Amino acid sequence: MSDSRVAGARQFLTLPGEYAMRRGGSLTDAVLAYESWGTLNADHSNVVLLFTGLSPSAHAASSAADPAPGWWEEMLGPGRPIDTDRYFVVCVNSLGSCFGSTGPASRNPVTNELYSIDFPVLSLEDIARSATPLLDALGIDTVHTVVGCSMGGMTALAFCMLFPERAQRLLSVSSAARAAPFAIALRSLQREMVRRDPDWQQGRYPLGAGPISGMRLARKLGMMSYRSAEEWTQRFGRERVAAERRSNDPFCIDFEVESYLEAHANKFTGDFDPNCYLFLSRAMDLFDAADYGGAVQSGVDRTSLSAALVIGVTTDILFPLWQQEELADALRESGADVRFKALTSIQGHDSFLVDMDRFRPVIGSWFAEL
Amino acid sequence: MSDSRVAGARQFLTLPGEYAMRRGGSLTDAVLAYESWGTLNADHSNVVLLFTGLSPSAHAASSAADPAPGWWEEMLGPGRPIDTDRYFVVCVNSLGSCFGSTGPASRNPVTNELYSIDFPVLSLEDIARSATPLLDALGIDTVHTVVGCSMGGMTALAFCMLFPERAQRLLSVSSAARAAPFAIALRSLQREMVRRDPDWQQGRYPLGAGPISGMRLARKLGMMSYRSAEEWTQRFGRERVAAERRSNDPFCIDFEVESYLEAHANKFTGDFDPNCYLFLSRAMDLFDAADYGGAVQSGVDRTSLSAALVIGVTTDILFPLWQQEELADALRESGADVRFKALTSIQGHDSFLVDMDRFRPVIGSWFAEL
Repeated sequence: MSDSRVAGARQFLTLPGEYAMRRGGSLTDAVLAYESWGTLNADHSNVVLLFTGLSPSAHAASSAADPAPGWWEEMLGPGRPIDTDRYFVVCVNSLGSCFGSTGPASRNPVTNELYSIDFPVLSLEDIARSATPLLDALGIDTVHTVVGCSMGGMTALAFCMLFPERAQRLLSVSSAARAAPFAIALRSLQREMVRRDPDWQQGRYPLGAGPISGMRLARKLGMMSYRSAEEWTQRFGRERVAAERRSNDPFCIDFEVESYLEAHANKFTGDFDPNCYLFLSRAMDLFDAADYGGAVQSGVDRTSLSAALVIGVTTDILFPLWQQEELADALRESGADVRFKALTSIQGHDSFLVDMDRFRPVIGSWFAEL
Repeated sequence: MSDSRVAGARQFLTLPGEYAMRRGGSLTDAVLAYESWGTLNADHSNVVLLFTGLSPSAHAASSAADPAPGWWEEMLGPGRPIDTDRYFVVCVNSLGSCFGSTGPASRNPVTNELYSIDFPVLSLEDIARSATPLLDALGIDTVHTVVGCSMGGMTALAFCMLFPERAQRLLSVSSAARAAPFAIALRSLQREMVRRDPDWQQGRYPLGAGPISGMRLARKLGMMSYRSAEEWTQRFGRERVAAERRSNDPFCIDFEVESYLEAHANKFTGDFDPNCYLFLSRAMDLFDAADYGGAVQSGVDRTSLSAALVIGVTTDILFPLWQQEELADALRESGADVRFKALTSIQGHDSFLVDMDRFRPVIGSWFAEL
């Protein structure tokens, strides 16, 4: 494409002019980062479109251009469950994120200032819709299967509701038709942790020098919601950290589970822009299939899917299983051929990233049978 | 008693001299605040000793001297499940707390400075043992039933393990024989929220002007662990706050569940000293019945109880039901006549404070049958 620049495996598409946002405002010459794997077939009927969770980039899997393992490495590739020998897979970096697509950490070309908290309110529908100019540019009318995990599952559903003629099938993993109040409360608290850190500076921190302490706290709470109590009971129990790793501070890290959270907090904070985090987090709260016609069913009825696979995990407290059942029921009622799978993974919401032995066969056999 | 001072219903006992703490250090002339209801019978055989959760005072119920409703008002009183026409009930304010008993917010009489973070490491065993001088002062050898909810249940168990000859029965409500890693992680994060607030000042804040922001965050996370996702789905759903209560801030309070948490945060922060909170929170993590002999069973085997009632709630994520089952099994194995009751309350860990229609009959009938 004429306006794409190659950087490793990552490619960029500029959305020329004004990209109008669903809840008001617009982005000028917004950029969409994406990666792709496999080959588009002659009649362009083998397209898998993948939307991500809140934090990953478009680098879902390795490739010749970027051999680093992707966030769904075991799921995606030649001979893998989402088989790139068979499908042309496109993964977009969400609008509002900070891995190549335009987000609050990007410069507004009109003002030449960072968007920061002046970024327009972000909706998952804005992310879903941003894929359509990319599909147009690639010459793709219709997507064989729209795939999304966690937040990406909501975005995928939004895509199927907004562009029913372009979406034939849906694979929704550990997601929901809308956020439940426990998840809303949790994310609201995470955002408050970031915003109350004095280094947030009302959102005007210099890039790369933001609210580290708040982001660390938010990440720790994130990990608590991404995994499960059962897993930690088995994995850590009441194990203590070694004496040499302790300090005289009466509130030092004492239990291994505290050390685990600390390690995750340290890893995350450098990676992710705090304002991007805030906007994406809020977008998850706001998404509601019931915005279309007043009920989850009326929203889902806007889709025109031939088939769907809905997967959930029994230990997920962020997107609990009843929400996947609700989505599966609504999709079935809307006329799709729905397979619903409840997995007994112990790693909670994150299971789709780690319990690959359970997820691979379910996704692989669904695709193989299509 | 010669060394008690009356203030409303609250009475005080000084523990004269040095009160040695389990994990090192001591308190000089520590004070224990307590309240009592009912009348001690002639042979002193009708004593109920009540230990509280992390945040309540000794004011468990109203009385002539203090008619304000107590934190377990519906459970305790004449003709109530814990019947003060029949029992002499004593509730102690936990050592380390800030409602009359000596804690980090108290002045160290030796230095005339606030203890603040120089308070010795607090153990639930220190709280349990502090009741024995009070029993001595009241002329009580043996307690008919030791009662505790949440943290208080752990303290009650500690009392029964440390002083088996003084504890005949145990009523444990939504508690455990030790903290599980999910609860440890949660409390660790709450403490970190408080400690990372710059106003904490390494624990040296002036009394009443401490880390309000950190305490608000900790309280919100507390509420998330005290209630249940199911309750909030039923109670709040995706209801929004009224337009006039919203601001232009893109991250203003939008959903009713956010408003609910905000109200609880505002209510709590004035009440509770942050350092007291830190020490009590840590004490819950540290408690482990397995410290006595290497296993929960060996610890529980130190008790000499004739009977026990163990109650848990299916929706409790802080003290999950399996922990009450573990405790009940261990108590049964130790020789006590154990009744275990799993209640289907929807309000999670807090159910014992709010779902009185379920809790009253279970506790009332157990006491009535004794």
